[in-house]
Amino acid sequence: MSRLQIEYFSNALRRMTSFEMLIPNDLPEGFPRENNAAHARPMSTLFLLHGYSGKAGNWVPEGLPEKLNFAIVMPTAENSFYLNGEATGSDYQTMVGMELVDYVRKTFRLANGPEDTCIAGLSMGGFGALHTGLAYPDRFGKIGALSSALIMYEIAKFKPGQGNSVANYAYYSSCFGDLSTVLERDVNPEVLVKKLKATGGKIPDIYMCCGTEDFLIEPNRTFHRFLEAEGVPHEYHESKGIHDMVFWREYIEKIAEWMFA
Amino acid sequence: MSRLQIEYFSNALRRMTSFEMLIPNDLPEGFPRENNAAHARPMSTLFLLHGYSGKAGNWVPEGLPEKLNFAIVMPTAENSFYLNGEATGSDYQTMVGMELVDYVRKTFRLANGPEDTCIAGLSMGGFGALHTGLAYPDRFGKIGALSSALIMYEIAKFKPGQGNSVANYAYYSSCFGDLSTVLERDVNPEVLVKKLKATGGKIPDIYMCCGTEDFLIEPNRTFHRFLEAEGVPHEYHESKGIHDMVFWREYIEKIAEWMFA
Amino acid sequence: MSRLQIEYFSNALRRMTSFEMLIPNDLPEGFPRENNAAHARPMSTLFLLHGYSGKAGNWVPEGLPEKLNFAIVMPTAENSFYLNGEATGSDYQTMVGMELVDYVRKTFRLANGPEDTCIAGLSMGGFGALHTGLAYPDRFGKIGALSSALIMYEIAKFKPGQGNSVANYAYYSSCFGDLSTVLERDVNPEVLVKKLKATGGKIPDIYMCCGTEDFLIEPNRTFHRFLEAEGVPHEYHESKGIHDMVFWREYIEKIAEWMFA
Amino acid sequence: MSRLQIEYFSNALRRMTSFEMLIPNDLPEGFPRENNAAHARPMSTLFLLHGYSGKAGNWVPEGLPEKLNFAIVMPTAENSFYLNGEATGSDYQTMVGMELVDYVRKTFRLANGPEDTCIAGLSMGGFGALHTGLAYPDRFGKIGALSSALIMYEIAKFKPGQGNSVANYAYYSSCFGDLSTVLERDVNPEVLVKKLKATGGKIPDIYMCCGTEDFLIEPNRTFHRFLEAEGVPHEYHESKGIHDMVFWREYIEKIAEWMFA
Repeated sequence: MSRLQIEYFSNALRRMTSFEMLIPNDLPEGFPRENNAAHARPMSTLFLLHGYSGKAGNWVPEGLPEKLNFAIVMPTAENSFYLNGEATGSDYQTMVGMELVDYVRKTFRLANGPEDTCIAGLSMGGFGALHTGLAYPDRFGKIGALSSALIMYEIAKFKPGQGNSVANYAYYSSCFGDLSTVLERDVNPEVLVKKLKATGGKIPDIYMCCGTEDFLIEPNRTFHRFLEAEGVPHEYHESKGIHDMVFWREYIEKIAEWMFA
Repeated sequence: MSRLQIEYFSNALRRMTSFEMLIPNDLPEGFPRENNAAHARPMSTLFLLHGYSGKAGNWVPEGLPEKLNFAIVMPTAENSFYLNGEATGSDYQTMVGMELVDYVRKTFRLANGPEDTCIAGLSMGGFGALHTGLAYPDRFGKIGALSSALIMYEIAKFKPGQGNSVANYAYYSSCFGDLSTVLERDVNPEVLVKKLKATGGKIPDIYMCCGTEDFLIEPNRTFHRFLEAEGVPHEYHESKGIHDMVFWREYIEKIAEWMFA
Repeated sequence: MSRLQIEYFSNALRRMTSFEMLIPNDLPEGFPRENNAAHARPMSTLFLLHGYSGKAGNWVPEGLPEKLNFAIVMPTAENSFYLNGEATGSDYQTMVGMELVDYVRKTFRLANGPEDTCIAGLSMGGFGALHTGLAYPDRFGKIGALSSALIMYEIAKFKPGQGNSVANYAYYSSCFGDLSTVLERDVNPEVLVKKLKATGGKIPDIYMCCGTEDFLIEPNRTFHRFLEAEGVPHEYHESKGIHDMVFWREYIEKIAEWMFA
Repeated sequence: MSRLQIEYFSNALRRMTSFEMLIPNDLPEGFPRENNAAHARPMSTLFLLHGYSGKAGNWVPEGLPEKLNFAIVMPTAENSFYLNGEATGSDYQTMVGMELVDYVRKTFRLANGPEDTCIAGLSMGGFGALHTGLAYPDRFGKIGALSSALIMYEIAKFKPGQGNSVANYAYYSSCFGDLSTVLERDVNPEVLVKKLKATGGKIPDIYMCCGTEDFLIEPNRTFHRFLEAEGVPHEYHESKGIHDMVFWREYIEKIAEWMFA
């Protein structure tokens, strides 16, 4: 498995930044290709988003890329929630959903269509996968959202000076903008879904999952019910589990199969 | 020359971050030690701060550490101006001036006193060196400030919605806080100098320099005059040059000699 | 967990080389310290050796360093069997057992005694751990050898032009020297044991393990019987398993407990 | 400038290895393109070979790739002289000239023809550039050889047990094979030239240079006279200089212009 660390100048961030990639392009001749369909098509790409406190490469699904013939692109988006802030150089949504997709497409010989480009993430990265995928539906064919931090309804209630055990009001404002209007703006994935429905835009395929003991289970159920109410077909899975790697290892395998098998 | 890339969990940033180091600890037996005094003492440390748009390692003074027996620590502080923002996880001042100094001291066998610990930087990093050194005068014995982005007076005039060709109002506010009070708060190095004088605190030795054709020459002259007016002894040097590596290569050598020879 | 990538000039290899380290020195204040005894002593060090075809960092025991308070040093020794070749710049034994131990001791604030310094490896690295530990018994207090490639008896039979499915005669000769005398020279760990017994030198504590279905089970049993015949106390464990990460994940945990708990 | 660090499994070396790349694919919109002809064609590639004791990335020509629109591939070939040894897993010639060229071609969207693929190096890497380019003339259109370690005639005289201040007989044998026949075999670039002439194969364009005070000046003059005697057109330049970066910085710029302008 090739592993790449890449530094480049990000116009969206106005500075040098870095990301990582895994490309299963060095498999020996006789490598057993369990899934022949996957290996018959050109190599696909998965954009894989880390959670709060994380970074590129701290969550690497082992064995899946070589089995299912896809590369992984792992951005580092700090604790940005994969959104565009107001401040110059804080356009993390643009960085991941536009700039980095363009960078990968022009630099690497990988399949380029939306049907070959998927996005997934866990926790804050699950929010990021849903939001980025819905913001750029012409670019991402499928979305995998694990234990997603769909915190819109929680932070919409915060008043200046408030916050929670994770972060303060200023932090959530720097990511989401004015918190009093967060539910009505594009930072809310529900708003993106409604706009796509209103304009007849294609909504990417969605696979959501969350552990029943996860502290984020209720926001995930809420978004699942929202998608049902809006008539948006999607996969939704719950099973016993908490907010940890045991759950994510199990489900990233299911999601990779769903995306690339 | 040993080169280290180090990832760790930053409590100040609430996430994994990385920095680089150079340690001249692999010199062969017969390496010519031009400066015997420098090699007779324990190895010192220079914290070296990048400019706006930069990152750790994009500015490496060649030949100096092995000549003058010092290690270099290169943080990556994004475009933060090395200040603590209001948002949770944006404490870049604390990260560089406290957390990273402590990290290096407890992890590496390097000389630990303030007389062995210096800080320097260029442009935004020149501001950072002055500000961080003055904020933690018990930690840094000497400050080297090259072509420093001492922009306090400029941004203090910005009104909401304004900005300059580099960045917008929201950006400067996220770094410096309320811009209307920037001159009166600790984000202004002048305020730190006055406080140290008022409390009788030791002010680190200061070496400032700027090219006469540099667009930042006036703010540097202003700070130089401020130090003169306050009776703070310091080195100040101007010579023909612009805001580029030619000038910085020349002066980082002078500054390293001034710090470590 | 801090992760370090370190480049330095290796005198043993006559060129720049690199290694990796893990140091659990960034644990947050409230990190649960399950094993108080381990955290009461200074931080120990484990030299961890990769197998044939591997490199530093491709085998990282998760969760153990922070639990048991030890750092990990991971050399990259190519396919050298951790031995000194005849050719200039192929002193891999010296590089791992002397140079790198010295480098780490002088550079990092870690416990320095042999009782705080252990060595372990898998497959070719299991051979390396036994051989290096026995070659420098004053430096390593404990040896962990997983599924060790104790191939001395096999390669001693090779004639010029012969070899096996892994590599050819020239390769084995470049690592082990003249194959016809391999059993009698210091490249054979048995010879090192006999010399230590003859001189009354301390033999490091040894923990060996191998899966019963591993293709290397017989050489491991042979070495185990040799140690028994020589009256060298040691741990020896077999259990169902093959030459794979499932076995190694299980046993590196047992070995880390044995070394550092 | 994008900087990539890439790890992959090398079949030629039978292990994981790494290389670096520079790709000027992140230039901002308004970047001044001094050489319009270079930017009108697809991006070319330069394979850049380090010297003895070096590694990928310790010699990076600054400013040239973005000016002349080419990517740089920097292999790490240890102290191998870029030749295939006899031992399994020491096929450095194959690694650089075949495997890595194929890897880059199938992985990156860069121009693929021999007219777009050049090779250059300094000292041991100058030998490597000449030898590799002549061994694979269908793959490399142009060769740049700086201060080349054309040591064939010197080492051909070594008897077992001999060597020089750099390395011993075993080392030279492990790189070049039987030293008594080194002048007659393909490890000698002269043999490759003669074979290409005999078969009517195209010889890549060659640019040689060496400082007049360089300890390698005579072997370079010898190879230059050989090429003249064989009627192989080539550039040959001498100027005042020694075996150091001052000379190489000057000439890599000339060579890049010659290759890509």
